[in-house]
Amino acid sequence: MEQTVEMKVIARIHSDFPAKFGIPRQSGLVDTRAKIIFEKEYRNPYAVRGLEEYSYLWLLWEFSESKRAEWSPTVRPPRLGGNKRVGVFATRSPFRPNPIGLSSVKLDKIEISNAYGPVLHVTGADLMDGTPIFDIKPYLPYVDSHPQASGGFADQVRGYQLKVEFPAQWKEKVPLEDWEILEEILAQDPRPSYQNDPDRVYGMRYNNLEIKFSVEEDVITVREVVEAIG
Amino acid sequence: MEQTVEMKVIARIHSDFPAKFGIPRQSGLVDTRAKIIFEKEYRNPYAVRGLEEYSYLWLLWEFSESKRAEWSPTVRPPRLGGNKRVGVFATRSPFRPNPIGLSSVKLDKIEISNAYGPVLHVTGADLMDGTPIFDIKPYLPYVDSHPQASGGFADQVRGYQLKVEFPAQWKEKVPLEDWEILEEILAQDPRPSYQNDPDRVYGMRYNNLEIKFSVEEDVITVREVVEAIG
Repeated sequence: MEQTVEMKVIARIHSDFPAKFGIPRQSGLVDTRAKIIFEKEYRNPYAVRGLEEYSYLWLLWEFSESKRAEWSPTVRPPRLGGNKRVGVFATRSPFRPNPIGLSSVKLDKIEISNAYGPVLHVTGADLMDGTPIFDIKPYLPYVDSHPQASGGFADQVRGYQLKVEFPAQWKEKVPLEDWEILEEILAQDPRPSYQNDPDRVYGMRYNNLEIKFSVEEDVITVREVVEAIG
Repeated sequence: MEQTVEMKVIARIHSDFPAKFGIPRQSGLVDTRAKIIFEKEYRNPYAVRGLEEYSYLWLLWEFSESKRAEWSPTVRPPRLGGNKRVGVFATRSPFRPNPIGLSSVKLDKIEISNAYGPVLHVTGADLMDGTPIFDIKPYLPYVDSHPQASGGFADQVRGYQLKVEFPAQWKEKVPLEDWEILEEILAQDPRPSYQNDPDRVYGMRYNNLEIKFSVEEDVITVREVVEAIG
């Protein structure tokens, strides 16, 4: 029997996250905007015909930045403090036997571009810029939506947010239209959760900017905003 | 840049559908029971630790019976009568660039078996017996559930059901505990929808049985139940 199957990259996402660090931990937590651009072979407007009738999409994508040679049966989810081990299939961790991510995103519009064919504009993606996409499916609420499903330990950590201190001198370095999104991203606590050092300054990339911050108790404070190098 | 990624088969489903024909068209439409058995390399109880706290799972699986050499930008969904073309990414059709299916199923229990390691008992799967599984993820209602999402043309066909006529002489050939499930499956209309011939007798496999039926208007009538060969 066949034990491996080859998946083709059909599209890539264009998002405001040039690096893995700082990306929201699940789709839909922050209203990040992104575009999906098909690879040349799949740039066919007919392939998305009818998709505009759906308000949400599923993206099946590659955890391209989280590859490990060996799979591990357990992982330590950052939201549980990073020291409790949970079975890999009981998490959405990227470190799983097959590097497939699953995210629902909101479909804002379909643009037919001369250069790129159909471009999907989406909100809520938790994908790094350039992430390879294997499949795009419509979200069917009558089979995909289970609002009463019990959510395991994820239930205990939903709604967790930090207060954001963003001094005006640094805020003005960020384009006005990005203020709200960036504050939402910071409120989600982009630290690796097993660290807890109020003096430590972290940096995360947002577009061409490096956002430096620290966290003390439940407050995240922006320390500096500089242009990123490279 | 990498254009293909290899996926490993980590598990297979064991369901009551030995053939493709007759399988419910989406997960959750019928309360079919099935078991997920891990491939040898992945039979580790630690890998499912914590999964019992979730009531639903995502299965990412291979459309192993629906392979075509070339992808087609449009498909003709059976529920639309089979003659309207829709973009492949606006459907859940198996005939897509990558043969990945996505189904949410209810987790009934996790059995730790001496022979097979952890075995997941699930309800609502729309997978053929033996279908290869690439990944199992917990269903997270706070990110995966969008009950208000608009469902495109699928909205118009949800709730569609046939009346089932199942004469006692044939019903008694089916184990009592399977009556309800089998009637639900028949009510979903297992015909290829572009056919509409009341005299035609179809056969579908259910476990070791061949169920023969015909459809006239909105009534499906079982014509015969025989033991399947092969």
